[in-house]
Amino acid sequence: MKVLVIGASGTIGSEIVKALAPQHEVVTANYSSGDVQIDITNKASINAALATIGKLDAIICAAGHVAFNAFDQLTDDDWQLGINSRLMGQINLTQIGSKYLNQGGSITLTSGIIADFPIAYGTSAATLNGAIYHFVKSAALEVGNGIRINAVSPSLVTESIPMYGAYFQGFRSIDAADLAQYYVRSVTGIENGKVYKVFAGN
Amino acid sequence: MKVLVIGASGTIGSEIVKALAPQHEVVTANYSSGDVQIDITNKASINAALATIGKLDAIICAAGHVAFNAFDQLTDDDWQLGINSRLMGQINLTQIGSKYLNQGGSITLTSGIIADFPIAYGTSAATLNGAIYHFVKSAALEVGNGIRINAVSPSLVTESIPMYGAYFQGFRSIDAADLAQYYVRSVTGIENGKVYKVFAGN
Repeated sequence: MKVLVIGASGTIGSEIVKALAPQHEVVTANYSSGDVQIDITNKASINAALATIGKLDAIICAAGHVAFNAFDQLTDDDWQLGINSRLMGQINLTQIGSKYLNQGGSITLTSGIIADFPIAYGTSAATLNGAIYHFVKSAALEVGNGIRINAVSPSLVTESIPMYGAYFQGFRSIDAADLAQYYVRSVTGIENGKVYKVFAGN
Repeated sequence: MKVLVIGASGTIGSEIVKALAPQHEVVTANYSSGDVQIDITNKASINAALATIGKLDAIICAAGHVAFNAFDQLTDDDWQLGINSRLMGQINLTQIGSKYLNQGGSITLTSGIIADFPIAYGTSAATLNGAIYHFVKSAALEVGNGIRINAVSPSLVTESIPMYGAYFQGFRSIDAADLAQYYVRSVTGIENGKVYKVFAGN
């Protein structure tokens, strides 16, 4: 399969590329590096990149930002950051990307554990990660052409503990290489409208 | 209790007012009528209205729009309509409104069944209604001052069948007066971070 991985140089994305590369043709994309450059907050950038690549069998998005701030301190800019990136960045990618997928192709987005288990400073992340859960469920039924749409919702990634560990004390982490297998499963399997919650349910 | 009902003239809001009025001081608000006028898509309007009213024990939002369109036809404007109204309208109302609530007060928002059960043309509604589920869960834990934050997620309202029934064929409807009791329960009860899903789970 020909698979586009957006955020290919990131902690999660680089493990996804490693997991897929032996058996698939992987096209890497990042904001400013990779085989193609994509800024998911910009529809023109998504359109241009996909037009360059042409038909694909799968698109994986392991990119997308969201702001962290105390609930009463969350500004319009904080909310807008996540709306443009985590939410509409991934939604626009899905709307545009679905037109570049071969029949039966798939799109796999990224959400996160905060949707289910709130942390301090996490209300914007919870809201927008949660939105992705419901987007995937509905879009998967509406998209047509045999296209599947799923999302992976990771717990804290082990490699990110130095950066984010303080926010997630007591949370069990997952190694990026193990997490990458859920994206592989989404691409190669048959599940549709599925959120892979990569954490225990409590 | 002193309770602000936004969308007080609407199908759901008018029944909420009817249910609360015998025992509570109800302040009605609409876009262009009621005791005060509030446009929830405009933070200045929210601020101005709340400053006029002063301290409250509860805020209920039974307002908020979202666009319906086929998945591949959803435009930027369609998405923005729901983001400004259903999503950020209710979120801004919560952030601003929480400062006007007495200790132990409550905020009750409105979501909808499409978050759980997709319908054609409903992907934007599903996404943004779903976002409200996760917002409420997180904001309720972060807001402080004993303030509770809940949401009501209605099925099709019986009185709305002439308008929306065609989109919801086979869905069991709920009468607005029965639905209003969930808002009463949110205001007068002790539940927090709760989404009242007013429909059977299948």
